[in-house]
Amino acid sequence: MDIHKLTRDLHTKSKSKIVMVVADGLGGLPMTPGGPTELEAAKTPNLDMLASRGVQGASIPVAPGIAPGSGPGHLGLFGYDPLQYVIGRGALEATGIGFELADGDVAIRCNFCTLDADGNICDRRAGRIPTEESAPLAISLRQVAIPGIEIFVEPVKEHRFVVVLRGEGLGGHVRDTDPQATGVPPLDPVAEEPGSEKTAEVAKQFLAQARQLLAGQPKANFHTMRGFASKPALPSYRDVYGLRAAAIAVYPMYKGLARLVGMDIVGQAQTLEQQMEVLQQNWDAYDFFFIHFKYTDSTGEDGNFDAKVKRTEELDAIMPRITAMNPDVLIVTGDHSTPAYLKSHSWHPVPTLLVSDCCRPDGQKQFNESTCIHGGLGHFEAKYLMCLALANAGRLGKYGA
Amino acid sequence: MDIHKLTRDLHTKSKSKIVMVVADGLGGLPMTPGGPTELEAAKTPNLDMLASRGVQGASIPVAPGIAPGSGPGHLGLFGYDPLQYVIGRGALEATGIGFELADGDVAIRCNFCTLDADGNICDRRAGRIPTEESAPLAISLRQVAIPGIEIFVEPVKEHRFVVVLRGEGLGGHVRDTDPQATGVPPLDPVAEEPGSEKTAEVAKQFLAQARQLLAGQPKANFHTMRGFASKPALPSYRDVYGLRAAAIAVYPMYKGLARLVGMDIVGQAQTLEQQMEVLQQNWDAYDFFFIHFKYTDSTGEDGNFDAKVKRTEELDAIMPRITAMNPDVLIVTGDHSTPAYLKSHSWHPVPTLLVSDCCRPDGQKQFNESTCIHGGLGHFEAKYLMCLALANAGRLGKYGA
Repeated sequence: MDIHKLTRDLHTKSKSKIVMVVADGLGGLPMTPGGPTELEAAKTPNLDMLASRGVQGASIPVAPGIAPGSGPGHLGLFGYDPLQYVIGRGALEATGIGFELADGDVAIRCNFCTLDADGNICDRRAGRIPTEESAPLAISLRQVAIPGIEIFVEPVKEHRFVVVLRGEGLGGHVRDTDPQATGVPPLDPVAEEPGSEKTAEVAKQFLAQARQLLAGQPKANFHTMRGFASKPALPSYRDVYGLRAAAIAVYPMYKGLARLVGMDIVGQAQTLEQQMEVLQQNWDAYDFFFIHFKYTDSTGEDGNFDAKVKRTEELDAIMPRITAMNPDVLIVTGDHSTPAYLKSHSWHPVPTLLVSDCCRPDGQKQFNESTCIHGGLGHFEAKYLMCLALANAGRLGKYGA
Repeated sequence: MDIHKLTRDLHTKSKSKIVMVVADGLGGLPMTPGGPTELEAAKTPNLDMLASRGVQGASIPVAPGIAPGSGPGHLGLFGYDPLQYVIGRGALEATGIGFELADGDVAIRCNFCTLDADGNICDRRAGRIPTEESAPLAISLRQVAIPGIEIFVEPVKEHRFVVVLRGEGLGGHVRDTDPQATGVPPLDPVAEEPGSEKTAEVAKQFLAQARQLLAGQPKANFHTMRGFASKPALPSYRDVYGLRAAAIAVYPMYKGLARLVGMDIVGQAQTLEQQMEVLQQNWDAYDFFFIHFKYTDSTGEDGNFDAKVKRTEELDAIMPRITAMNPDVLIVTGDHSTPAYLKSHSWHPVPTLLVSDCCRPDGQKQFNESTCIHGGLGHFEAKYLMCLALANAGRLGKYGA
């Protein structure tokens, strides 16, 4: 089912405001049998009060058992079926460093590598060269010039950098040049379909010039290219929902994901407090606000249960700042679970809370992994969350007569 | 997934009886925070007793957040995916007034309008002309004659009437002639695809004759045509489920919807009591009974919480009449929610109860919005209800060996 076929037809004008707070990696696990999850261990009086006014459920990011990356995790929350819409690796990497992709751009993840005297790869990651050394090398590749093509080279971290090609007729389907082995030369870029032949040719020229520019470098004397990807064609929030949407995020990845669905990136907040200020300042200009909170994920990734509890309490503490704005719909959710116990993204459903005047409260008094499975939203796929948001905001007309 | 592909293959013969009671707009909302819904406020000893014998769940009419009209709401309950099967506006309007569409018919919603001396529309609804004045005008249009085409003109209400065209080769894809504006002339009917060119031509001739017949009328001196629609191609209950099905409804719309899926319309009941009599009289002749109760919806639409409570209690009171017949499967559900709080159809899941000898009771002692979310049927899409009905009736064989 194409949800946007419905929302495009049914969305209506309204002055209502929707706030979606995404606590990255919100869901967790007990560290010991019978113990609490991070969200259960945290003191969250504000979220619990909202729980008693609202309706909650367990959001399935992609499908049962599937742990998503940040890309599909957020696409689902934004209402874009993460199995239908795929952000290619290169495009996600570019997005993650804040590069603003234009329509038709092709983004490529590159790894510095070390070639031996015979031109065979002896280290696929150039000895994990430190960023201080690799960044200037990446920048030196900005000297590459190919007629008719605008080229961007952006350092990332250690051996990684991004190349973006801009020009006419560039397809995104080109094979990786990393042979995934040492003792062999890098592969040539080969188009996987006719529409990407120009990209393959441009990549070949880029590699040829890069080989000269990097010649003589002790470690990073060449690089591979992987994850060729066009800018994904995502319809905008305005098109599919009729919403003027703003993203209030700290990290480039989440700003980038929001930009891909047509949200404006507002403010330059570095803290939750500042994010709240930006929310207030922009309240009148937008219908929908995406507020991203990173630290429930990063502490989970670190396996630091206590730190994740503390970060969760920080988030709870600012909820009154949001409710003071009287949003018509307030959603608190996560793009996936990141249990400290697993130190990674996981497939577990994500506690998700929706508060509105017409949300049919479900009698829950707390908000966590245990309560959400008894909530009135049931278990639902994240991609439906935006339909629920619009409906509760009085922004969806009736389907059929 | 096409559910009917499964049920067509798997349905078996049985003497079992299924009764589906549809309380239109059954689901509700509290009027004040912490208050009861209509169904919770109602005294429903019979439904509660059934709840303790049965299994309940929260039915999602179309998709989370989507409020359906009566058409998609009932199609879902009847097991026809409401996103796959669409009843066009004209066909639904004809159905709603009890017009029995034949295969190949094209139904058109018409609005009387007022043209000024220059032929521009000055009132798109002919001053909302009262039905007493508009009905005779609609009937006067039965004089329109077009060779090879059988034409039906049926008054509806105020400025609205229905035209049905019957003949060979009439497609249903023709653009509205209502320009959605005043000060401009009505549009010509234009086919949206080659198969509907004949329909557009016939409509043009109809409009030309109507213009002459209505000339000189002070208000309704012309009309527009909207929502051209063929009779929807819905497979029948007998085909997809092997069921002889009867509809016991009071209002034409629900009789019409039932007819579209091949149910027989039995009796001429005007009250619940009479519907129960019709049920008894027809018990032996059918396998499946659809009993429609309108007033939980109409009171909700009126925003009259107390009246909806009272109507719910009325419905509860007749349940012993149904259980006395010993149906093998008894279902109580709604096609959507109509909370008095919202005065409209809504997206909220609908409390749904199924009672059979093999239904795996879920320990619930009441039947309402709060209990259904903890029921054994979970949250489920309405389109699966008929599968559950057939299974509980011993009418579905095993899938695969």
